[in-house]
Amino acid sequence: MFERDSGVLMDSELICLRREFHRYPETGGLEYRTTARIIDELEKLGLPVQYGSSVHTDEKLFIRASEEESEFCINRAREEGARPDLLDAMRGGYTGCVAVIEGAKPGPTIGIRVDIDALTIQETSEPSHAPAAEDFVSVHENCMHACGHDAHAAIGVGVAKLLCANRDSLCGKVILIFQPGEELLLGAGSMTAAGVVSQCDYLFGVHVGLQSLPVGTVAASVTGFLAIHRFDAIFRGEASHAGGAPEKGRNALAAAATATVNMLAIPRHHEGSSRINVGEFIAGTGRNVIPDKAFLSIETRGASTAINKYMADRAECICRAAADMYECQIETVFMGSCNSAACDTELVAETVRILSHVDGVERVITDFDFGASEDIVTMFDEVQARGGQATELIIGMPLVAPHHNDHFDIDERVIGIGARCLAQLALGIGAKGSLNY
Amino acid sequence: MFERDSGVLMDSELICLRREFHRYPETGGLEYRTTARIIDELEKLGLPVQYGSSVHTDEKLFIRASEEESEFCINRAREEGARPDLLDAMRGGYTGCVAVIEGAKPGPTIGIRVDIDALTIQETSEPSHAPAAEDFVSVHENCMHACGHDAHAAIGVGVAKLLCANRDSLCGKVILIFQPGEELLLGAGSMTAAGVVSQCDYLFGVHVGLQSLPVGTVAASVTGFLAIHRFDAIFRGEASHAGGAPEKGRNALAAAATATVNMLAIPRHHEGSSRINVGEFIAGTGRNVIPDKAFLSIETRGASTAINKYMADRAECICRAAADMYECQIETVFMGSCNSAACDTELVAETVRILSHVDGVERVITDFDFGASEDIVTMFDEVQARGGQATELIIGMPLVAPHHNDHFDIDERVIGIGARCLAQLALGIGAKGSLNY
Amino acid sequence: MFERDSGVLMDSELICLRREFHRYPETGGLEYRTTARIIDELEKLGLPVQYGSSVHTDEKLFIRASEEESEFCINRAREEGARPDLLDAMRGGYTGCVAVIEGAKPGPTIGIRVDIDALTIQETSEPSHAPAAEDFVSVHENCMHACGHDAHAAIGVGVAKLLCANRDSLCGKVILIFQPGEELLLGAGSMTAAGVVSQCDYLFGVHVGLQSLPVGTVAASVTGFLAIHRFDAIFRGEASHAGGAPEKGRNALAAAATATVNMLAIPRHHEGSSRINVGEFIAGTGRNVIPDKAFLSIETRGASTAINKYMADRAECICRAAADMYECQIETVFMGSCNSAACDTELVAETVRILSHVDGVERVITDFDFGASEDIVTMFDEVQARGGQATELIIGMPLVAPHHNDHFDIDERVIGIGARCLAQLALGIGAKGSLNY
Amino acid sequence: MFERDSGVLMDSELICLRREFHRYPETGGLEYRTTARIIDELEKLGLPVQYGSSVHTDEKLFIRASEEESEFCINRAREEGARPDLLDAMRGGYTGCVAVIEGAKPGPTIGIRVDIDALTIQETSEPSHAPAAEDFVSVHENCMHACGHDAHAAIGVGVAKLLCANRDSLCGKVILIFQPGEELLLGAGSMTAAGVVSQCDYLFGVHVGLQSLPVGTVAASVTGFLAIHRFDAIFRGEASHAGGAPEKGRNALAAAATATVNMLAIPRHHEGSSRINVGEFIAGTGRNVIPDKAFLSIETRGASTAINKYMADRAECICRAAADMYECQIETVFMGSCNSAACDTELVAETVRILSHVDGVERVITDFDFGASEDIVTMFDEVQARGGQATELIIGMPLVAPHHNDHFDIDERVIGIGARCLAQLALGIGAKGSLNY
Repeated sequence: MFERDSGVLMDSELICLRREFHRYPETGGLEYRTTARIIDELEKLGLPVQYGSSVHTDEKLFIRASEEESEFCINRAREEGARPDLLDAMRGGYTGCVAVIEGAKPGPTIGIRVDIDALTIQETSEPSHAPAAEDFVSVHENCMHACGHDAHAAIGVGVAKLLCANRDSLCGKVILIFQPGEELLLGAGSMTAAGVVSQCDYLFGVHVGLQSLPVGTVAASVTGFLAIHRFDAIFRGEASHAGGAPEKGRNALAAAATATVNMLAIPRHHEGSSRINVGEFIAGTGRNVIPDKAFLSIETRGASTAINKYMADRAECICRAAADMYECQIETVFMGSCNSAACDTELVAETVRILSHVDGVERVITDFDFGASEDIVTMFDEVQARGGQATELIIGMPLVAPHHNDHFDIDERVIGIGARCLAQLALGIGAKGSLNY
Repeated sequence: MFERDSGVLMDSELICLRREFHRYPETGGLEYRTTARIIDELEKLGLPVQYGSSVHTDEKLFIRASEEESEFCINRAREEGARPDLLDAMRGGYTGCVAVIEGAKPGPTIGIRVDIDALTIQETSEPSHAPAAEDFVSVHENCMHACGHDAHAAIGVGVAKLLCANRDSLCGKVILIFQPGEELLLGAGSMTAAGVVSQCDYLFGVHVGLQSLPVGTVAASVTGFLAIHRFDAIFRGEASHAGGAPEKGRNALAAAATATVNMLAIPRHHEGSSRINVGEFIAGTGRNVIPDKAFLSIETRGASTAINKYMADRAECICRAAADMYECQIETVFMGSCNSAACDTELVAETVRILSHVDGVERVITDFDFGASEDIVTMFDEVQARGGQATELIIGMPLVAPHHNDHFDIDERVIGIGARCLAQLALGIGAKGSLNY
Repeated sequence: MFERDSGVLMDSELICLRREFHRYPETGGLEYRTTARIIDELEKLGLPVQYGSSVHTDEKLFIRASEEESEFCINRAREEGARPDLLDAMRGGYTGCVAVIEGAKPGPTIGIRVDIDALTIQETSEPSHAPAAEDFVSVHENCMHACGHDAHAAIGVGVAKLLCANRDSLCGKVILIFQPGEELLLGAGSMTAAGVVSQCDYLFGVHVGLQSLPVGTVAASVTGFLAIHRFDAIFRGEASHAGGAPEKGRNALAAAATATVNMLAIPRHHEGSSRINVGEFIAGTGRNVIPDKAFLSIETRGASTAINKYMADRAECICRAAADMYECQIETVFMGSCNSAACDTELVAETVRILSHVDGVERVITDFDFGASEDIVTMFDEVQARGGQATELIIGMPLVAPHHNDHFDIDERVIGIGARCLAQLALGIGAKGSLNY
Repeated sequence: MFERDSGVLMDSELICLRREFHRYPETGGLEYRTTARIIDELEKLGLPVQYGSSVHTDEKLFIRASEEESEFCINRAREEGARPDLLDAMRGGYTGCVAVIEGAKPGPTIGIRVDIDALTIQETSEPSHAPAAEDFVSVHENCMHACGHDAHAAIGVGVAKLLCANRDSLCGKVILIFQPGEELLLGAGSMTAAGVVSQCDYLFGVHVGLQSLPVGTVAASVTGFLAIHRFDAIFRGEASHAGGAPEKGRNALAAAATATVNMLAIPRHHEGSSRINVGEFIAGTGRNVIPDKAFLSIETRGASTAINKYMADRAECICRAAADMYECQIETVFMGSCNSAACDTELVAETVRILSHVDGVERVITDFDFGASEDIVTMFDEVQARGGQATELIIGMPLVAPHHNDHFDIDERVIGIGARCLAQLALGIGAKGSLNY
């Protein structure tokens, strides 16, 4: 397929790199070490890389960590070997980077986006868990790559290597985007507002795994990008001594508990999938004090933007009523959202055609039900609004544990397969596209 | 009344001391600075003071903080002026101290116990709050004297001063106990097991405030010491991606929320007061992850030990059933308990007689409904089991906010009144007692 | 004691009568047969009896049954042997009656009130249940004397017999009140408004059982008459097909379920006992229809009128918030209330003195904790407001099952004891009272 | 289209008939009058009709009404004009009937099934509701045709009329099934077990409405037949006096309320639609009695049999845990279920072809998302298991209110359209089929 593949793409190198990302996971807005490491690799290939404030917009910057926490992570990244100049450029949450690979021939502009952030999950250390057994388990407390973004980052580097080695055949140029803060659903918005995908005629995203496809099966498109709405609810009541004057308290914890169960009970919507989760519940100051404050982190999803709006409206209504029920005050804080989106039929057909010839790909399917949210839809919206086309690949693998579980792990063969798929698409779509120029 | 009172008991000094305690509050097992400061005052009076491991039993030691937190508090105490040798002796949670005041004449052994710990509450900084306005608001984040134990500690020092100045009239000896960890309901147990009250013929406790008695009213006894049971409930489920596979999660947060509302709904007991509180709720790892762990801190109370047992049994049953409901595992961890107790009628009558003549006391009542729990009942149990007698005083004051509220404050006149009441009781009971020798 | 007791008061006759009442129980406003039977007995004694509209006020009439149900019960009563003319006079809920027994000598007016209504409970037919074993179990479906009012009615008849036989010694006159609708908390109000107790210098109520006192123990007074508030809550939402469009429904059943659990969770009040019950829950129209209507019957109680108000206010607030939570409408309907009340100390002392000499009474206690509500407090209020005095007797007996349980039963010895106590009080109080004339 | 259509099918007659069915609705197992009226019409056409025990199997008979209620409905049907001999034949729940229409030519056996039962909903009497305005609103209390089965029954009669008039062109024979008890999901099972569809080569069902298709649009097939599971949960606790001994009760009502909210909160399943409804909640015996019994009627659904099983298993688990939580006993009673099913592609294609030419049909769609359950799937299972094919038509109409709502109404034009579609299918499929003989 690639004229120069086996000579350049050492799957074992990408696997090493993925394990390094896995060992040092960082959450959205704090991907200091991860980004620095990616830039190292890209600059080794001689590629121009943009990073720091040039790939973000201040008003959409999404870092949620305190300045102290951010500095702590920068220092930690430095101690873990990150280049200080890169860290300085990223200080304050300007993480992620963009490389541009110019082809030798004219052609379209093709965006390829991978995401690089981790989750606040404490990784299991059980010996049955491969990262634990093979000594690349996360060394960052309560932080884990449990969604495969370590593999995505390695795939991105693999694409860069392949395309650099095949630059002669590349028509047009590739914008290779290493996006931070996907789990926050906010990173794509900041980069999109900075114009990162504004020139793209085509856009490709990628995700590994999802519901136990066999290795070798690749989906050329997905359905079921769920629209999503995220908010925090903060309940404020009145503290009182739980023994001496319980009736004088206004119990914020009880209000939040009632809100929780009733939000989970929002009726299903007959038009399509809906979701609701109360992901975090933090309340109370002491065992013998009627709790005067409770915090909930909440998200709703829907198969359509309308279904998601129904869920979000009901959830907020329930929080308000639960606060009233316990005579508490309530504040809700918006924490991100994105719409639903659809892959472009024409591009999908072309993608199927091209993927059928990629090494390691045994079967190409379409319309895989994603059943989750991805902030790449913000980039889809931008590209499609400008007349471009977009799709998302799924690189199949069986799951040993669900995504976002502390036992999640990947089949490392997906790294090489994913890199080859995306690189071949860049070469193939560009070639086709160039005919139209 | 006292032969040498106005010459020695400068109320303003005690008020200063109370404000100092208020400014540097410390929770149970971490009262390093508070204890060191009390020892300073007692040693200034020339009193022998026991502290450290001699006033505790290792197996009942109650410190719940991690070693890191404990060291942090020791260092902080040092920076705030505490004597390093005292801190070394207390390291590891051996806080509190006991002073013995020997009278000039033979007589009974009289225990007087004050408690000294604070609560994990963030004190308000509103200007209407006197400690904020007069600049002695807590400087320790999320820690506050919101139950008056700062006043109790100052009262204890006042008692020492008064009795030292009146040693000639004192028959027998006074064991003056500055007890830590009352809010944990565990400090009295550790000191009692170490024999601190084993010799006491009489025991007096004291509390300021409680339900807005006017200043000048003192209760010579209380009813309604609520029996109490404390436990933590830890729910463990299974994490899963909230969008991709919600049905694969087992939601520990939802189980805990259901347990919470239903525990609050445990039926009232017709035989007397009962209480239930879920004081803290901490659950979840991320907004988009089905929560696999939830922590609740729970306490039940009852007007009798039997009622409390009913409440505790129901609460544990509900937690277990809520875990089953969400297919979660549950672990409950015992966190302390104490029984109900009654004041001794004979001692109460004598107390009424003596208090009627104390300066500042305008009215003496009995059988004040305490309506809360006090771990002094553990000391009551020990003293009464050995044939001694015990009672608890309430030094009345109006409340500007309930106990355990972030606006709680005291009327500082109670400090002098409380000290005089207890000192006069030591002198009076001793005198009476000595007749029987 | 009584000059003519054994000659007149055949305990076995009263027991037969009680069993007859037990066999034909009738709920509040429908005591047609029960009243007719009582009138029979009273008229046999030659007593003038008032009944029908003369002992009620139309605007306070409390019947809740539909006209159909009322007619059904009148017909049933006729078939069960009730006199048609009496039934006609009572038609429409004018149940209960009042007999006046004039003493031979001047003296005070003494009210004695017994209640006669039953509960909507299906009585057990287990052979271990004495009424089942001895064949006087209720023949009225879903209706049962599970609170002892069958015994109270028999006691009232016994009092009439005893006083008629001792009329020569009776100073003043006795107003003997057979009150309907006590369980509704509304019967006393209607009779009081009609002036039934307006002339009473003294008023006595009576209850059998309550918390397993031994037979032979009688309480001369009670504390803990709980204030009570009763209301219905009707939630109205929107029906929808549960499969086809669940999100279009507004689920009244779910709102009521949430209201229920949270009302049970209203915080205890530190000043004294409180109660909350959701006694009935009726909702929904079909399994596959989102329920558009739900009905709850609710009552709150409190040791004081203020505590009850706290409970009632919280309960209504919670219902409203639960309706909001599910976007439902709510209507609350007041269904009766009464205050707390206290027995008069002076009368209680006199009662103790008199009861000590009654045959069958082995021990007289006071201040028995009633722990429930009694609408006799409405009569207390009236008598006490006019300068009279009132108290309530408890005729002790062990309980085989709690009051209002389908296994509830009485120890039939309480009937004779209760009748003698009340008759002796009439004779004794009257005698004393006459001295003052 | 039909050779003899306008001459026979008077839409206005069918509308009259539908209005008559609407005025006298009957729920499953009690369709006495409805069936008798249908038989009248069929016999007027000279068709042989089977009914009574010949179209049911005793062991699958589904009547849930008591014998009293059944007799009440039979008497009512007689008073409303039903033929006594038919009522006698149906006594005990043997409702519904089957007519056979033999074609003049050989051909396949074609089943056409319409359902005829109503719902326990009180129909609105608001003037904006056409049946109220035009005086055919339900005269049966708490019973209403709110799902269009009145129209289905009229359509069935229309099909009979059309086919009788076109018997010459009919190849094969038509089994015309008027099925009772669809809303119970049990009627199809009883008829299927009696062999009603055992000979069918093809089977057609029909439903009017569903999600506001315009009149003139017809769906030739549906997806989303939801699998369904129905059960009752009966909670049994212990009654007690709510004021006197609340802690002695075991609150079945509270257990059921907790079960309700938590069942509604069962997590969505990522593989497809799920549903849960608690349709009825009946609990308690009196306001002041801790409720000892609660009844819930519950149903779950799922896009697949597996999803439905997940929902049903979780629902039963939650009920059990809620019972444990309140120390209650629980009994669950199975009340019917059916699987998911799929329409046969080959038959659907043929159906599309034939429907395109039916008078009044402007647009034919396929794969309409049914989003609900239909017990016709039991007949599908039987026919498909024997090698036959089946599909379900949707006769589109806008909805003024959702199905199962008390304002539900139909656009009466669907009756004629539905009858013509089914009759034309019988003629067309038979004709095609005959070619293969």
